[in-house]
Amino acid sequence: MKFEIQSTDAHSKARAGSLSTDHGTIQTPIFMPVGTAGTVKGVHISELTDPIKAQIILGNTYHLYLRPGLDVIEAAGGLHKFNSWNGPILTDSGGYQVYSLAGTGRKIVEEGVKFKSHIDGSTHFFSPESVMDIQRTIGADIMMAFDECTPYPCTYEYARKSMEMTHRWLDRCINRFEATEPKYGHNQALFPIVQGSVYKDLRKISAEYIAEKGAFGNAIGGLSVGEPVEDMYEMADEVTDILPKDKPRYLMGVGTPANILEGIALGIDMFDCVMPTRNARNGMIFTTQGIINIKNEKWKSDFSVIDPAFADTVHGQYSKAYVRHLIRCEEMLGAMIASVCNLRFYLWLVGEARKEIVQGSFTSWKNRMIPQLMQRL
Amino acid sequence: MKFEIQSTDAHSKARAGSLSTDHGTIQTPIFMPVGTAGTVKGVHISELTDPIKAQIILGNTYHLYLRPGLDVIEAAGGLHKFNSWNGPILTDSGGYQVYSLAGTGRKIVEEGVKFKSHIDGSTHFFSPESVMDIQRTIGADIMMAFDECTPYPCTYEYARKSMEMTHRWLDRCINRFEATEPKYGHNQALFPIVQGSVYKDLRKISAEYIAEKGAFGNAIGGLSVGEPVEDMYEMADEVTDILPKDKPRYLMGVGTPANILEGIALGIDMFDCVMPTRNARNGMIFTTQGIINIKNEKWKSDFSVIDPAFADTVHGQYSKAYVRHLIRCEEMLGAMIASVCNLRFYLWLVGEARKEIVQGSFTSWKNRMIPQLMQRL
Ligand SMILES: [Zn+2]
Ligand SMILES: [Zn+2]
Repeated sequence: MKFEIQSTDAHSKARAGSLSTDHGTIQTPIFMPVGTAGTVKGVHISELTDPIKAQIILGNTYHLYLRPGLDVIEAAGGLHKFNSWNGPILTDSGGYQVYSLAGTGRKIVEEGVKFKSHIDGSTHFFSPESVMDIQRTIGADIMMAFDECTPYPCTYEYARKSMEMTHRWLDRCINRFEATEPKYGHNQALFPIVQGSVYKDLRKISAEYIAEKGAFGNAIGGLSVGEPVEDMYEMADEVTDILPKDKPRYLMGVGTPANILEGIALGIDMFDCVMPTRNARNGMIFTTQGIINIKNEKWKSDFSVIDPAFADTVHGQYSKAYVRHLIRCEEMLGAMIASVCNLRFYLWLVGEARKEIVQGSFTSWKNRMIPQLMQRL
Repeated sequence: MKFEIQSTDAHSKARAGSLSTDHGTIQTPIFMPVGTAGTVKGVHISELTDPIKAQIILGNTYHLYLRPGLDVIEAAGGLHKFNSWNGPILTDSGGYQVYSLAGTGRKIVEEGVKFKSHIDGSTHFFSPESVMDIQRTIGADIMMAFDECTPYPCTYEYARKSMEMTHRWLDRCINRFEATEPKYGHNQALFPIVQGSVYKDLRKISAEYIAEKGAFGNAIGGLSVGEPVEDMYEMADEVTDILPKDKPRYLMGVGTPANILEGIALGIDMFDCVMPTRNARNGMIFTTQGIINIKNEKWKSDFSVIDPAFADTVHGQYSKAYVRHLIRCEEMLGAMIASVCNLRFYLWLVGEARKEIVQGSFTSWKNRMIPQLMQRL
């Protein structure tokens, strides 16, 4: 695996790079559609390639571990074979899902985390070691270290202690990662995760600790969990000043189109978020002209396409009035169309950002685009 | 519009024909996927053409009338423009849905039917005349007469009176149909519906009454509503002996693969049923080898394709284990894949039946196929 930077922006920390994996090369900055249980909700595997143009998708360790279970994934020959997506896959560590299970008997101790399945209430235990083993079995091209994602708000003391445990867990992850081999003949990389909540000094300590490990790439976790957006940008800014420039940087769980463009400006290369698919199911559609709430009465008899920029494909030819009708009737096809629209938009967004970085016009383009993309149509 | 019979089977009443409409020619016998609210559930419009190979789809007058509403459909220029399906469309009359609303304050009188919307409880009234007007506005290539679909069981006396009212309603439908014009420049045909419950003499009276109207095509309603399958075949047999041989015959709401093959043998040309899509959502998949309940444990680690006969397409390449996982997780993609599989199978089934009729081998093929297709794998 290899990461190369092709261009850097003169007016921001934005960069255009390429990240090569055994399942293909990813042009960065990139957005990764979330495929929770080995499927991006409402989207055929073939649609990820065309028209969405996804280059890498994300899988959730927690969900895949529970269903279909590691026995099935291993018997299939890994997640790529199981779901037939042949491009790169990144798996999270399960830390975020386990954090979301707060209040259901979840218990975090030094050894790891005991939690109850949201499906059948059965008890399970994740440790840094087991999470490495699980991701070896899933066969992700990029594996994430096991971390604690602190809630927001979070006291300084809790954030500090949690971060220190995340660092100790990282060392255990690295040990296990180095002691084990990929199972399916393709290489796997391990990304550590910077924590520290919204405390700048903790973020600095964490970023330095993580940077020093010399991993193939690095991630920033614990953001986009309810903190003001200024705090998110400030933390990302602090951390990207410290993380090595020649390694890919992944801002986990972010975000809106504006968040992504600002993140790119702060030197982030990789993003993931459930927003494009989750909001699609509720009728919020992102377009190159702004945001559409397709349920609004105003689209009732609007037979124009959702986004003229994408009218060239089969999916781009559905009208606003038709999609409004489908979403109001809770017809599956509404969610299917809106999900493809939103993911295609997100991939378009990072692709355009990349072009602008290469052309040297990223910052002025970004400042022009954010109000346009975030306006409500 | 034109209907031509190309071949008839020597050992049954099966026939192979072609039905031409302004939106294309349909090779009969044909199965029509049900697109209740202007969408076949879980299926992209483009998938209806490839890989499903649908030649005509059905829309439900009741659902389309309530949502998106006639104003929207008319503003779009008809249902074809609204949902972008450019092939032929048949709409039912709303009679069946209104029948399903029994017990919710629905009231059937000579003038028509008063009913409450299942969405918001608002009161509406359908008459033979209004249902013709609605289907003119929807713009279906084939419109259905307004009928009362009797429940099963049903007394002889109720069935007789209901049938007589259906006949009076038919006359009103024909008057209105002849007094009005298509709205969008393409021709529309009206199909009357034979009723009479499971009473052979009533079916005979009804078929004779309907045959005498000289409509472009004729339908058999009020079957597949809970009666023994032998009754259904007996009624269809009786009716197809009477309906004109040179007109297409449509058996409404039928059925399983076996029902369809037996229906073809009885001289039926057109079928529709929600079974392929509804059962798909519950994990029942029809294949050329038999019926799969994909939720069964036995498919857990079976990485072979759903149906080797359709492995040549993108949709045909998903494995049983993957689809089982998706359906168990209630992931949309599971229902999407299974719906495409089942509809493709149904269209394959009628296509194969047609070939066998033309080759003169239909009856022996049908008798061989039924046990194969209906076995549980
Ligand atoms: Zn997010
Ligand atoms: Zn049916």
